[in-house]
Amino acid sequence: MEFRFSKSVGTLTSSAVRDILKLTQGQEIISFAGGLPAEELFPLEAVRAAADRVFALGHKTLQYGVTEGHVPLREQLCVRMAAKSMDVHPEQMLLTTGSQQAIDLVARVLTEPGDVVLVESPTYLASLQVFRMYGLRVVSVDSDAHGMLIDEAERLMQTLNPRLVYVVPTFGNPTGRTWSTERRKGLVALSQRYGVPVIEDDPYGDIRFDEQLQVPTLMSMQPTVDGGGVIYLGSFSKTVAPALRTGWAIADREVVRMMAKAKQAADLHSSMLDQQTLDQLLQVFPLDDHIRHVSSAYASRMQAMQKELESRGRGDLSWQEPLGGMFLWLELPEALDAQTLLRAAVLKGVAFVPGTSFFAEKPKRNTARLNFTHTGGERMRQGIARLFEAMDEFLARC
Amino acid sequence: MEFRFSKSVGTLTSSAVRDILKLTQGQEIISFAGGLPAEELFPLEAVRAAADRVFALGHKTLQYGVTEGHVPLREQLCVRMAAKSMDVHPEQMLLTTGSQQAIDLVARVLTEPGDVVLVESPTYLASLQVFRMYGLRVVSVDSDAHGMLIDEAERLMQTLNPRLVYVVPTFGNPTGRTWSTERRKGLVALSQRYGVPVIEDDPYGDIRFDEQLQVPTLMSMQPTVDGGGVIYLGSFSKTVAPALRTGWAIADREVVRMMAKAKQAADLHSSMLDQQTLDQLLQVFPLDDHIRHVSSAYASRMQAMQKELESRGRGDLSWQEPLGGMFLWLELPEALDAQTLLRAAVLKGVAFVPGTSFFAEKPKRNTARLNFTHTGGERMRQGIARLFEAMDEFLARC
Repeated sequence: MEFRFSKSVGTLTSSAVRDILKLTQGQEIISFAGGLPAEELFPLEAVRAAADRVFALGHKTLQYGVTEGHVPLREQLCVRMAAKSMDVHPEQMLLTTGSQQAIDLVARVLTEPGDVVLVESPTYLASLQVFRMYGLRVVSVDSDAHGMLIDEAERLMQTLNPRLVYVVPTFGNPTGRTWSTERRKGLVALSQRYGVPVIEDDPYGDIRFDEQLQVPTLMSMQPTVDGGGVIYLGSFSKTVAPALRTGWAIADREVVRMMAKAKQAADLHSSMLDQQTLDQLLQVFPLDDHIRHVSSAYASRMQAMQKELESRGRGDLSWQEPLGGMFLWLELPEALDAQTLLRAAVLKGVAFVPGTSFFAEKPKRNTARLNFTHTGGERMRQGIARLFEAMDEFLARC
Repeated sequence: MEFRFSKSVGTLTSSAVRDILKLTQGQEIISFAGGLPAEELFPLEAVRAAADRVFALGHKTLQYGVTEGHVPLREQLCVRMAAKSMDVHPEQMLLTTGSQQAIDLVARVLTEPGDVVLVESPTYLASLQVFRMYGLRVVSVDSDAHGMLIDEAERLMQTLNPRLVYVVPTFGNPTGRTWSTERRKGLVALSQRYGVPVIEDDPYGDIRFDEQLQVPTLMSMQPTVDGGGVIYLGSFSKTVAPALRTGWAIADREVVRMMAKAKQAADLHSSMLDQQTLDQLLQVFPLDDHIRHVSSAYASRMQAMQKELESRGRGDLSWQEPLGGMFLWLELPEALDAQTLLRAAVLKGVAFVPGTSFFAEKPKRNTARLNFTHTGGERMRQGIARLFEAMDEFLARC
């Protein structure tokens, strides 16, 4: 049979990151490509004990659950959100299969094909995939070290009538960038003024390298969740473990209700074993201490990678030191196309993600994203050495 | 902010079943409404031990996984599929968050809004929700006790150029109906002749009340998976436990590749804890013995409910005895609208699902779906008694 695939899925390119990961499976390649947390820091014993407490609750724990997600976990998350100055009711929250699913559900309920969505430049790759699959027109707003340029965003709101804005304002992916408070306020105000909902994707916000640093979420800048245009997305993937695939979306309760309707059709509900395990974990495990521990380890890895890059003394390499998160965003010499460099690098045994795929429009070809959380120590140094080897050879040929 | 919701999600009614479940939560209502397996039969200790073996494998078990699903579980499932005369390669299989997600992904990759999808009359409620969300035109094909009427299906293929067919041919939901081999062959032939893919949704196929009964899957009637139009969906929800939210789709590998691309955007991947736990479970747990045990218990419950219905001797009630699965489909007296009856029944403390919601078109209002797997024994008898009370009062008023 000849299958006729839908136009939308035809436009999807498979994620460059995941394709590279597949390519490198089993080979001796040092990868800075994936957005992987450090396995050795996963609270394995605590998760195991939590799962065991779930099973001890008996047979009913293995039954179907509600689409909106395990109520006790939502209640605990509301308490955690309160500590971030977000006053949230469980009915304003939907548990999802990672925050990736939340992006999908928001696009599903708030857009029609052909609508415009505004994003940062560059932005999270897999959000672009969702928006393209729904046939949206993705327009990128010029951004600098402090976040999206608000004047530019306003101009586009006036001229393009966008249906949605998507941002990662804290320790962003891919740039590691943290928006200034002013830009945050600016976007929240625009959202209200022009009636455009804003997805605030915040998977990295807890991974901050300076404990004293207080970064307000966009959602905390609204008077109330109901009636506000911000849709906040959180995730356990970086603070507990990705395998448990649990994220949460917070929004006006009517938006949550519509997302739940869409989710019911999409998969009925997410894993109840995962949700109940996380609920049990939060009841006894000092998650904030754990997050401090993980963040401090990641800060050291970031510093070490930065030092390694600096020590090799290439004046034509630059980056902005991230205040948290998982990524270093490199600007390479102008002459260097990172996609071509990647092929040379993989031959040397090192991988990264060329920056091109993170741009909705006008890609900067001389950019690369390096993950610093997964590979540390001697192996990281070896990886950077290989990367510079590839770069040197490449530039010598130019 | 005034949210403008997409047209597609506006057309979604929340599942009648799940709304009733919500309604009945915490109240003393005997529910035959949900499609819930019997909790007390879940292999809790085996699942617990399997999860524990997963954790014993170390930190890497909590890391991100591949979109297509845990490879060792796909390999074991291929062996299980071979026992059903389906020769499947792991690359022809995608693991999903329950088979509900597979229905969603198939619709996403194989249809455009406005396309026609053919379904049985009546059919699985939540498939209708998916198709409506994607803006498809759902057309129901007249069906009898042996399945879809093939001549009618052919006529519709010739006139409506459908893009997809969706069926539950074995111990179906809601009717409990099992298609004859002839009808199965007929649909597979039509699928090839007219180039229309067929979703064979088979969550209940293993729950058969007569061990000797051999029911061939549609997929096993194709020469090969690649090039064939059948997309087979299986699930652990009824044979192990729903909380683990794991289903699998089998199809031509190009279809699987496209579904995986769509799934990557939808949620990156399903729970790895669930998938690895099921993999460990299958390695040591005698699942087929367990399925025989569960099926035999369900057969007894079905017989008991049937006896209870018969013993009350209403000649104006009829049903077809199911050969497996989880549902009895009642035809009530003509004068009885099951939606109205439900309200009276809930007041008496019993719930079921009115048949109307399972019809894509031309609903038969005097039909009802009763689940017999979740509530057995004295409680089931009490529930049936309440149902008859409601019916009697209702008919007395007519």
